[in-house]
Amino acid sequence: MATVNPALTQPNTWLTPSTEELQGILDEVRDTVEPLTSEGSVADYIPGLAEVKPNRFGMAIATVDGEVVGTGDWAQSFSIQSISKLFALSLAYAHDGDTLWERVSREPSGDPFNSLMMLERYEGIPRNPFINTGAMVIVDRLLSSCGTTREFLLPMLREESGNPHLNINDEVARSEAERGYRNAAGANLLASYDNLENSVDAVLEEYFNQCAIEMSCGELALAGRLFAREGHRADGTVLLTRSEVKRINSIMLTCGTYDAAGEFAYRVGLPAKSGVGGGILAIIPGRCAVCVWSPGLDERGNSLAGVAALDELTRLTGWSIF
Amino acid sequence: MATVNPALTQPNTWLTPSTEELQGILDEVRDTVEPLTSEGSVADYIPGLAEVKPNRFGMAIATVDGEVVGTGDWAQSFSIQSISKLFALSLAYAHDGDTLWERVSREPSGDPFNSLMMLERYEGIPRNPFINTGAMVIVDRLLSSCGTTREFLLPMLREESGNPHLNINDEVARSEAERGYRNAAGANLLASYDNLENSVDAVLEEYFNQCAIEMSCGELALAGRLFAREGHRADGTVLLTRSEVKRINSIMLTCGTYDAAGEFAYRVGLPAKSGVGGGILAIIPGRCAVCVWSPGLDERGNSLAGVAALDELTRLTGWSIF
Amino acid sequence: MATVNPALTQPNTWLTPSTEELQGILDEVRDTVEPLTSEGSVADYIPGLAEVKPNRFGMAIATVDGEVVGTGDWAQSFSIQSISKLFALSLAYAHDGDTLWERVSREPSGDPFNSLMMLERYEGIPRNPFINTGAMVIVDRLLSSCGTTREFLLPMLREESGNPHLNINDEVARSEAERGYRNAAGANLLASYDNLENSVDAVLEEYFNQCAIEMSCGELALAGRLFAREGHRADGTVLLTRSEVKRINSIMLTCGTYDAAGEFAYRVGLPAKSGVGGGILAIIPGRCAVCVWSPGLDERGNSLAGVAALDELTRLTGWSIF
Amino acid sequence: MATVNPALTQPNTWLTPSTEELQGILDEVRDTVEPLTSEGSVADYIPGLAEVKPNRFGMAIATVDGEVVGTGDWAQSFSIQSISKLFALSLAYAHDGDTLWERVSREPSGDPFNSLMMLERYEGIPRNPFINTGAMVIVDRLLSSCGTTREFLLPMLREESGNPHLNINDEVARSEAERGYRNAAGANLLASYDNLENSVDAVLEEYFNQCAIEMSCGELALAGRLFAREGHRADGTVLLTRSEVKRINSIMLTCGTYDAAGEFAYRVGLPAKSGVGGGILAIIPGRCAVCVWSPGLDERGNSLAGVAALDELTRLTGWSIF
Repeated sequence: MATVNPALTQPNTWLTPSTEELQGILDEVRDTVEPLTSEGSVADYIPGLAEVKPNRFGMAIATVDGEVVGTGDWAQSFSIQSISKLFALSLAYAHDGDTLWERVSREPSGDPFNSLMMLERYEGIPRNPFINTGAMVIVDRLLSSCGTTREFLLPMLREESGNPHLNINDEVARSEAERGYRNAAGANLLASYDNLENSVDAVLEEYFNQCAIEMSCGELALAGRLFAREGHRADGTVLLTRSEVKRINSIMLTCGTYDAAGEFAYRVGLPAKSGVGGGILAIIPGRCAVCVWSPGLDERGNSLAGVAALDELTRLTGWSIF
Repeated sequence: MATVNPALTQPNTWLTPSTEELQGILDEVRDTVEPLTSEGSVADYIPGLAEVKPNRFGMAIATVDGEVVGTGDWAQSFSIQSISKLFALSLAYAHDGDTLWERVSREPSGDPFNSLMMLERYEGIPRNPFINTGAMVIVDRLLSSCGTTREFLLPMLREESGNPHLNINDEVARSEAERGYRNAAGANLLASYDNLENSVDAVLEEYFNQCAIEMSCGELALAGRLFAREGHRADGTVLLTRSEVKRINSIMLTCGTYDAAGEFAYRVGLPAKSGVGGGILAIIPGRCAVCVWSPGLDERGNSLAGVAALDELTRLTGWSIF
Repeated sequence: MATVNPALTQPNTWLTPSTEELQGILDEVRDTVEPLTSEGSVADYIPGLAEVKPNRFGMAIATVDGEVVGTGDWAQSFSIQSISKLFALSLAYAHDGDTLWERVSREPSGDPFNSLMMLERYEGIPRNPFINTGAMVIVDRLLSSCGTTREFLLPMLREESGNPHLNINDEVARSEAERGYRNAAGANLLASYDNLENSVDAVLEEYFNQCAIEMSCGELALAGRLFAREGHRADGTVLLTRSEVKRINSIMLTCGTYDAAGEFAYRVGLPAKSGVGGGILAIIPGRCAVCVWSPGLDERGNSLAGVAALDELTRLTGWSIF
Repeated sequence: MATVNPALTQPNTWLTPSTEELQGILDEVRDTVEPLTSEGSVADYIPGLAEVKPNRFGMAIATVDGEVVGTGDWAQSFSIQSISKLFALSLAYAHDGDTLWERVSREPSGDPFNSLMMLERYEGIPRNPFINTGAMVIVDRLLSSCGTTREFLLPMLREESGNPHLNINDEVARSEAERGYRNAAGANLLASYDNLENSVDAVLEEYFNQCAIEMSCGELALAGRLFAREGHRADGTVLLTRSEVKRINSIMLTCGTYDAAGEFAYRVGLPAKSGVGGGILAIIPGRCAVCVWSPGLDERGNSLAGVAALDELTRLTGWSIF
C-alpha cells in the first residue's frame, strides 16, 4: 500500500481575496458588461417571464466561509428556472446514489435543451439530468422517494439560502403549464418508454413548480456553496461526499449550459448551471459560488450579459478549473 | 479599476508529492487494474495495430518540474493515434488564434468519433477538433501555415519528449490509409463544404502520418507538460498563453474521449485525450501530466484498463479539477 | 385449385372477372397464405387488440358495381385502426381542398409510423396524413369544420359500407388512450408548433375514437369503392373529383403502409392503407377495392399474411397500377 | 389552341390518340409552361452543365408502337445525369434478380438525394437505387458482372434510342469528377461498410461516365418504352419480365424524383425519373414514354418547367396510374 501525502487530498489552498477586493472586482465586471444588458431577448414563451424588464443586471459571490458580496440587482428575486435542476439532482443523487444513472445518462446532448430526437434515439433514457426530460426523471425520483417541491426542494433551498420566505411563483408555474406543450410531449415520451414511476401530470406539475421558485443572486450564491465546499450544507451536515460533489460539478461543466456547454467551458472554464430566467450559478471549487442574473438571453438560452460577466470575472481573477 | 490580489492568479499551490510517493501510487494503480488488461478489444480495423498484444499496461507521470515516474510498460512505444490531435491543435491554435474556430466548433458531438451525420447537420463545420473530421481541418491549417507532420509536428514532439528518435510508423500509416474509407469519406465531405484548403489526398496523408507517430507513456507525459505548465515548452519558450492552455484543456475535458466525455469527466474529472492505440494522456493543471497505455478498448474506443487506472489514480490522490 | 380466367392475367385487359372467378381466386389466395397466419405478432400495446386470436384470415373484394365476394373470416369485424385515416383524410380534403397541405406534407417519412424526430425536423408539419401526427392534424381539421367521429366519420362509413350498426369499440378506444403516451407526446408536440386548432385532449379523444371503429373486410371493401370509382359515394353523390381521388390514391401508394411503403409498392403495386388491427385496404382504380385481415403483424406493423395475400392476388390476376 | 380529342380525357379509355392529337397536346403544354422556363436555376455545381442556357424546353412522346412526337427542343441533346440510373438499374436487375436487394433497399429516403445520414443510419445499405450512393452500388454490380459504361450501358442506350452515335460527354464527366467531393464521400462510406466490390475510384469513374451520357428527349422517350411495354427491348427481345418492369416502375414512383417523390406522385401520378440536367422521363404503362427537358431546376433538383409540363400533360389527357 502506497503512502499518500495528505497534502495531495487537500482542497485548493488559494487565498481568498478580501471583501473589498471582491467588491471591486464585481463592480468592475458590472461596468464592463452593462452595455450588453440591452441585448439578448427575454424568454417570452413563458408569459410570467416576458414581463421582466431586460436591462437588469445583478451578481453576487458567496465564499465558502459564508461571506456574500454583490453588485447591481443582486438582491432582486427572479425565476430560477433550470437552475433548480442542479439542486433537485443533488437531492436525488444523495438519495439514490449511482443507481440514478440507470434512468438518465451523463453525456452532453449536442442538441437544444428541449429536443426530443435524442430521447427517441436512446430509447427513453435522457442524455443528462439538465435537459428538460432528464430533469423530469429526477423530479419523478424525488416524488417517489422524498416528496413534492414544496415538501422537499423548497425547504432545502430556504435553509441553504438563509431566507425562510423563498417561494414558488404560482402564476409563473401556471403560465408555463398552460403553454408547456413541448414539456408535456417530453413527459409523455418518457412514459411511453416506461421511464416514469409517477403520472405524467404529477411529474409535470412538480417540474413546473421547481422551475418557478424565485431567488436572488445572493440567495443562489449562498445555496451554491454546497458545491464549493464539498457537499456540506449550511448547517454543517453533509449532503454529498467530496467525490459526489466532484461528479455533479463535472456534469455541470459538460452539460450545464444546454448545447453551449463546450463554448461555455472554453470561455469561462467553470462548472455552471443556467436558466432561461437569466440566472447562471457558477462554482469555483473550494473557494466560492457566483451567481449572475440578466434576463436577456442569447440564441442558445443562456443569459447574454451573464456569460460575458463570468468571462470577465475569470479574466480578472484568473479563476478557472483548468 | 479594482485591485486584484496577485495570489488569485497563482496556479495551484498544492504540494508535489515526492518521487517515492508517486512511484508507490503508480504501482498500486497497476496492481489494481492489471486484471482488466485482458478485457476490451484491440482496434483491429487498423492492421498495424491489430498485432499488439492486448494485456500490456504502462503508466507514467511527468511533473511540471520535469521529474518522470513510471510503472509497467511505461517505456514501451505505441501508436499515439488520436492523442496526436491534441498537439496538432495546440500548434494550429498558437498559429491561428481564435480565427481557427471559424472552421471547427468546440462542442461535444454526442456521436461516435467517426460519425458524418453531425458534419452534414452543421454544414461542414466539424463539432470539435478531436473528432476525425475536426482533426482533418486542423491538419489542413497546419499544412497551409506550418508544413507536414514530418516538418512540424514530429520535431515538436521530439523536443517536448526529449527523444530525438521519435518517428512515424510508416506501415501503420499505410495500413490505415488503405482501409481508411470512412476517413476518406469525411475528408471528401469537408471538401464538399469548401472546408479544406489543401487537397483531400494531402490532408489524409498527413492525418494518417500524425496518427502513426509512436511514443511511450513517459514520452507522452513529458510532452503533455505543455498543458500542465501554462503553455511553456520544454525549452522554456511559450507556445500558448495561460488563457489559451486553459481553453485547450476545456476542450479536452468536454470532447477528449469521444462520445464518452461526460462519463469520463464524471469518473476521472481531468482533461484528457485518448487514442485507439490504447493511450490516454491526462492533465493535472499546474502539477503534472499522466499517460497510461493498455491496448484493450472499451466499446467507445477508449482504453478500458486505462480509464480504470486514471479513475483509481484520482481516487488515491484526490486529484480532480472539480 | 381455382380456375383462373386467362384473360385476367393479361395486361390491361380491364375485364371484370365473374363472381365465380373472383371467388376461386380469393379461395386460392387463402389456401396459399394460411400457413403464414400463425406468424407475425398481434399488436399487444393496445390491450383491447391483444386479445384477438392471431391465426384469423379474411379477404373480400367489392367491385365498382357493388358486387362483394369474400373468403375466410371476411364478415368478421375487427378494429380498423389506421385505415380510418384514409377516410378521415378524404372528408377533410373534400372540405378543405389544397389548403389542407399547409398543415401536413405528402412525403413518405422514411421513419416508423410513430417517430417524432421528423416532426421536430420539419418544425411541426407532419410528413404525411397517414403517420399518427399527420392523422391528428386531419382529426383537428375535421373537429373544426365537420364535427366528432360520431357526428361525421362514423355516419359516412355506415353509409358506404351499408351497415347502419357500425360502431366504435369504446373499450379499445379507452385502452389506447390509457396507454397512448406516444400519441399524447405527438399531439403535444404538434400543439407546441401551433399546429392544432383544438385542444390536445379533444384531438386525442377523436383520434382514438376513429381508430377504434370496427368493420369487416366486406364492409371496408364496400367503403373503399369510393377510391376505385372516382370519388362517387354509395348513394351516387360525388365526394371527391377524379383528380382528387387520384391524389389520395397516390398518397396511399407512397405513404399508406408506414415505412414499408416502397417495399409494398414493389411487391403489390397497389395503393393501400394498413392498420395495426391487421387490416389492409387496397384499391384497383376503376375496378374494385380489396380488404384483407389477419392480425399477426410483421416488424413494420403491417399484417404479415395480409401483405402476402395481396402479393399473391396481384400475381394471380396481373392487377397492378404499374 | 390544340384540339384535344374528348375521348382522351375520359378515364381509362386507353385509346391511343393519333399523331396529330399528340402533337396538339404537346404544343399546348409547351405554350402553357414556357413562361416557367426562365424560373428555376441551372445546376451550377457541375461546370459542364452551368453553361446551358436556362430557358430551353423540349418534350417528346414515344408510343409503344414506336411513333415519336415532339415539341420545342425535343431533338436537342442534354446531359441525362440521374436518368441514367434507371437504365443501369434495369440492366443490373435483369442480371442479378432479387439478390440485388441485399445491397440496396427500395424505400423512399425522405432526405435530399445526396445525404449521407441515411447511409450511416442503415449501416451502408443505401435507401434506394436512385439516390447517388444507391446508384453507385448498381454501378459496382454492373462493373462486376457486365462491364463499364462504354461496354454495356452506352451500347444498350444506343440500341434503344436508335441513335448509334450517343456518347459520353467527357468534359462533363471530368468536371463532375473534379468537384465530386460529396459523391467521393458517399463511395468511400459505402466501401467502409464493405458494400463495394470494385475500387472506389473505378466505381466513381463509371458513375460519372453514365451521368454524362447525352441524349435528346426523343431518344430518351424511345429508350423509355422499355418500361411502357413490359420489358421488351427495341429489337423485340425481353430484358425484363412484366412483373420485373412493374417493380422498377414502382421504385420510380416512390423514389424517382429525389425527396419530392410524394409531391410528384400527387401532382403527376406517373412513374418517373429525373436528372439535374433538367430531364424527366415518365412512363404511362402499356401506352407510351414521355420525356421533358428544361434546365431550370426547382429547389429539390427537379426541372421546374418539366414537372409543370407533366402536370399539364396529365391534366389534358387524364393519364395517371391511379
